[in-house]
Amino acid sequence: MQVEAGPLLQQINYPSDLRKLKPSDLEEVCRELRQFIVDIVSVNGGHFAASLGVVELTVALHYVLNTPYDQVIFDVGHQAYGHKILTGRKETFHTNRILGGVSGFPKRSESEYDAFGVGHSSTSISAALGMAVASEYKGEKDRQHVAVIGDGALTGGMAFEALNHAGIEKSNLLVILNDNCMSIDPNVGAMKEYLTSITTSRSYNKFRDDLIAVLAKISKNGPDAYGWAKKLEQSIKGTLLKNANLFESLNFRYFGPVDGHDVAKLAKTIEDLKHIPGPKLLHAVTVKGKGYALAEKDQTTWHAPGLFDKITGEIKKAVLDKPQPPKYQDVFGHTLVELAEANDKIMGITPAMPSGSSLNIMMKAMPDRAFDVGIAEQHAVTFSAGLATQGLIPFCNIYSSFMQRAYDQVIHDVALQKLNVVFCLDRAGVVGADGPTHHGAYDIVYMRCIPNLIVSAPMNEEELRNLMYTAQMPDTGPFVIRYPRGNGVMVDWKRPFVKLEIGKGRKLHDGEEVAILSFGAIGNEVVKAVQTLHEEGIYPAHYDLRFAKPLDEGLLHKVFKKFNKVITVEDGSIMGGVGSAVLEFMADHGYGAKLVRLGIPDEIVEHGEQAELWRICGYDALSIATQVKKLAAGIKTDTMVS
Amino acid sequence: MQVEAGPLLQQINYPSDLRKLKPSDLEEVCRELRQFIVDIVSVNGGHFAASLGVVELTVALHYVLNTPYDQVIFDVGHQAYGHKILTGRKETFHTNRILGGVSGFPKRSESEYDAFGVGHSSTSISAALGMAVASEYKGEKDRQHVAVIGDGALTGGMAFEALNHAGIEKSNLLVILNDNCMSIDPNVGAMKEYLTSITTSRSYNKFRDDLIAVLAKISKNGPDAYGWAKKLEQSIKGTLLKNANLFESLNFRYFGPVDGHDVAKLAKTIEDLKHIPGPKLLHAVTVKGKGYALAEKDQTTWHAPGLFDKITGEIKKAVLDKPQPPKYQDVFGHTLVELAEANDKIMGITPAMPSGSSLNIMMKAMPDRAFDVGIAEQHAVTFSAGLATQGLIPFCNIYSSFMQRAYDQVIHDVALQKLNVVFCLDRAGVVGADGPTHHGAYDIVYMRCIPNLIVSAPMNEEELRNLMYTAQMPDTGPFVIRYPRGNGVMVDWKRPFVKLEIGKGRKLHDGEEVAILSFGAIGNEVVKAVQTLHEEGIYPAHYDLRFAKPLDEGLLHKVFKKFNKVITVEDGSIMGGVGSAVLEFMADHGYGAKLVRLGIPDEIVEHGEQAELWRICGYDALSIATQVKKLAAGIKTDTMVS
Repeated sequence: MQVEAGPLLQQINYPSDLRKLKPSDLEEVCRELRQFIVDIVSVNGGHFAASLGVVELTVALHYVLNTPYDQVIFDVGHQAYGHKILTGRKETFHTNRILGGVSGFPKRSESEYDAFGVGHSSTSISAALGMAVASEYKGEKDRQHVAVIGDGALTGGMAFEALNHAGIEKSNLLVILNDNCMSIDPNVGAMKEYLTSITTSRSYNKFRDDLIAVLAKISKNGPDAYGWAKKLEQSIKGTLLKNANLFESLNFRYFGPVDGHDVAKLAKTIEDLKHIPGPKLLHAVTVKGKGYALAEKDQTTWHAPGLFDKITGEIKKAVLDKPQPPKYQDVFGHTLVELAEANDKIMGITPAMPSGSSLNIMMKAMPDRAFDVGIAEQHAVTFSAGLATQGLIPFCNIYSSFMQRAYDQVIHDVALQKLNVVFCLDRAGVVGADGPTHHGAYDIVYMRCIPNLIVSAPMNEEELRNLMYTAQMPDTGPFVIRYPRGNGVMVDWKRPFVKLEIGKGRKLHDGEEVAILSFGAIGNEVVKAVQTLHEEGIYPAHYDLRFAKPLDEGLLHKVFKKFNKVITVEDGSIMGGVGSAVLEFMADHGYGAKLVRLGIPDEIVEHGEQAELWRICGYDALSIATQVKKLAAGIKTDTMVS
Repeated sequence: MQVEAGPLLQQINYPSDLRKLKPSDLEEVCRELRQFIVDIVSVNGGHFAASLGVVELTVALHYVLNTPYDQVIFDVGHQAYGHKILTGRKETFHTNRILGGVSGFPKRSESEYDAFGVGHSSTSISAALGMAVASEYKGEKDRQHVAVIGDGALTGGMAFEALNHAGIEKSNLLVILNDNCMSIDPNVGAMKEYLTSITTSRSYNKFRDDLIAVLAKISKNGPDAYGWAKKLEQSIKGTLLKNANLFESLNFRYFGPVDGHDVAKLAKTIEDLKHIPGPKLLHAVTVKGKGYALAEKDQTTWHAPGLFDKITGEIKKAVLDKPQPPKYQDVFGHTLVELAEANDKIMGITPAMPSGSSLNIMMKAMPDRAFDVGIAEQHAVTFSAGLATQGLIPFCNIYSSFMQRAYDQVIHDVALQKLNVVFCLDRAGVVGADGPTHHGAYDIVYMRCIPNLIVSAPMNEEELRNLMYTAQMPDTGPFVIRYPRGNGVMVDWKRPFVKLEIGKGRKLHDGEEVAILSFGAIGNEVVKAVQTLHEEGIYPAHYDLRFAKPLDEGLLHKVFKKFNKVITVEDGSIMGGVGSAVLEFMADHGYGAKLVRLGIPDEIVEHGEQAELWRICGYDALSIATQVKKLAAGIKTDTMVS
């Protein structure tokens, strides 16, 4: 739904329009921009609190800098709504995150103002440094390169790698630390405590006042230099030493902390910093959700609240006349606590996704056994490996696309050592509105090639519970369970645990002529397809593979002895996925059936609703049914529909 | 070759023996241990300078701590020779890095003293924290957990992630920073400069002396508190502020710097630290190569010098009567400079492997266009992406197994944005003596599933040059070139550049009945196999695929129209590799040939010489020839030989 902008914002289509305004207008621009974001997100959904927090920063940056020649990268990018609205996308912003519409994240193909595509955390300093070094090399001395990064994103190791490198380059880089003490959940870690200490009374300015007071005393009480020196030393150790600047240690010039909601001050500071060469860090303190009282108070809920009544703040939930199946993430969260109550070896680990993964349920119930380690997937995996060496059974929950960050650690620290770590990959398969950066498209491929790993996917809530139950048995070895974003299919999901045999699938439907092998929850689309086909008198068989590794060879032998037309269905890349695993089985055992692989094709899948994307990729129920009919009729099938 | 230990070392088989000695014996133990390492590495080869640098640390740790109950993790692990010799492996250490012998890295399956398997950098703090948290949970309050990490490894982002998390845990963790200013090459980055500043005169102790001097002056000259405060403030800003402790900022208690070669002092310090709870960092300054003069002087050469005369220091090179083919890495290094001379858009990037990748050639020739960014694969990739957004063409050289560290960045920052980054993956395929942690087994699989990527492998030096030449053409998109460790096959390798057609392979041999499709330099084993077979009157065809993505479909159509017995050969995992890509092609186009995939099987391949491992994995020339004969004769073939 389109909404109306305030009078100043109406005049602004591009930053060049913004720059025509007087400095004294900026506060009003911020007010209108904030209002516009509230108006539009409340009726269209999307990320919310993060963008409200950087309204002033965004306006100041585009006012002072010569964007897009000057380059600004918003780390993660879910805070860039203001940026998008000010850079040519105000009129189309109501299509945010909708199929074919504006992307929820900055994207180079969408606008020249989006200097770098983002989505995953902690990339901005590396990318901005690359741009700055390129400008240095090309002699563009006046060109500005800015990375806007949150204190949460700063916990990601690659941000530190970038700071470490930037500190020895002379190029023109400004890092703006958007310090709001939050990731999606409250930020954690020593760095956060450090930043807090900078911004509290134990700051350098405070120390200077103390020092003057102490010396004033000296001048009154006469000489006892050594004694006073000891005293001073204590004072220094207690305050300055602890709070001396970490960024200066890394060769950055540190400025701040400044009030991130004082647009005039920000504009002036950024203007000043333009003229200071080399790596600089501006520490801006902001409030996530700023200007929307409820969001300021409960920042996690208001990170991406869905639709809401902007006046009352009531978050709209679909009114349903009967109980709905739970989210897979909640099944994980509750089941983990249930298992951990019975098995004291179980621990829970999340890299900064307590609410996204529902590990917050265990963090609340068993605070000494559940860890939020920060936006730090690499550490999360190897920390889990360390726990496992001591006989514990860590459940390490990482979104499928974020697990790409810890691929080496899975191989090097877990699989090579065959440690009992259970990886729960949430958001596996296409994720919907978050789009290409967040689709969990590759995990089946990049996991199944690793020796010692078990790779599984539940078709429904009960299966998820049973896989978790099975994975925590002693000496099971590294175990991957992938499941999708969103809701399951069972209202009555809390059934007694059953131990599954590893590497065994199951038959859902006997049938004739065509067999369908599905992996994971996308099997429910197959169920729908089979129902439709039954109505048309076509009876394909349906098997749930359950395990991509090890494959159920017994089941496959049965299938290929009976069927010479087979379809594999997976919510993941077909280049090397489960379908390819089945092809490998066929080649190794001399089966010559016609096999059609349905899954994510070898191209970038854009954003849209999950069901829309399944359709576009050709593995929603209707597409599956069509493929069965084509195959049954012997018509040439398309393996990659796009 | 076995060597004899000194008199004290002869008595030591396990740390329990070491602990029977008097503290005053430790210096002699260190001397003998160092001598033993020199004796054994000089005749057997292996890593050298790193282990010499930590002799005193190693002895002190095992003397003071109750290993293996107390747990010590050596980051990377190439410095752990002394550790291995003191922990039950003195008598077998001459088999170091040899097939079936002791591993060159700590390995849990080898010894209970190897608390965690290592090989890749920067994992130790995460793993040790996991162990410490487990001990905390289990109530093992007295148990010690130590991570020994170099200043080079500290530049890896996951080390920072771990520090950030450790700083908020109360568990008993000691990080020992082994500060020798080196990775394999000299360490780089702001952190290194920072550590240097701590250990030079601008240290805290120095500041304290200054402070006392200043205050003595105050007591003489009477009151002017404000003036003196300003003066003091300047002094503080100039020294302490810059050097105040980064680790203390992250909630670690910082101790040091201490002399890492004073074994008595180290033992006493570690003893003291045992009784201090919570996260602690001990900063030990060491000299890589300590005690072997030549190694101290040229630490990069002596990182892993091969065999040498321990008296003269002469490094032994095989005496050969004719010119030899170059290493692939040197072909890369020289060719990159050649290309960069003609194309001013080309830049070179390495994460801390200047000498290992031969990017040092460009760093010397064009210092403003070649970057060592530290042990920071993630940053290296996204920094390259940043450069590429500005129209430059970065060649980012990363070993295949290290690229696992930057998988997300390849997908998220390069492929999604279709940026012109050229990834040169050195050490692809089995690497030999470095073993399982370093084999480049998975890159074909984890790369070919990513949209927009071109995945190639040269069969020889000329092909490597031509692929590099082709990849730097405008708008080619992200381009992967994988090549193995070691030497090529062409003495006369510097041939004029030829642009290759992307996605086109080539025919090497016409033949009959059986066709062999090879990918990359392992094709030279196929050439040998074909020669042998010719002598036996068997004439298989041989094609070099050159590209795993896009596949040469024209070539494949020809092959499968002519042959119904086909073998694929790759120096990489057969679960999802090139062979699977060919199976996918066959399925999509209805070919029903018998296909045998040769490559790395689905198991951990141990260390040994490359040729030995090819044989074990079943794709050396002899195995290939055997497979051709079996297939030609219609005998059932083994696809996964182990």
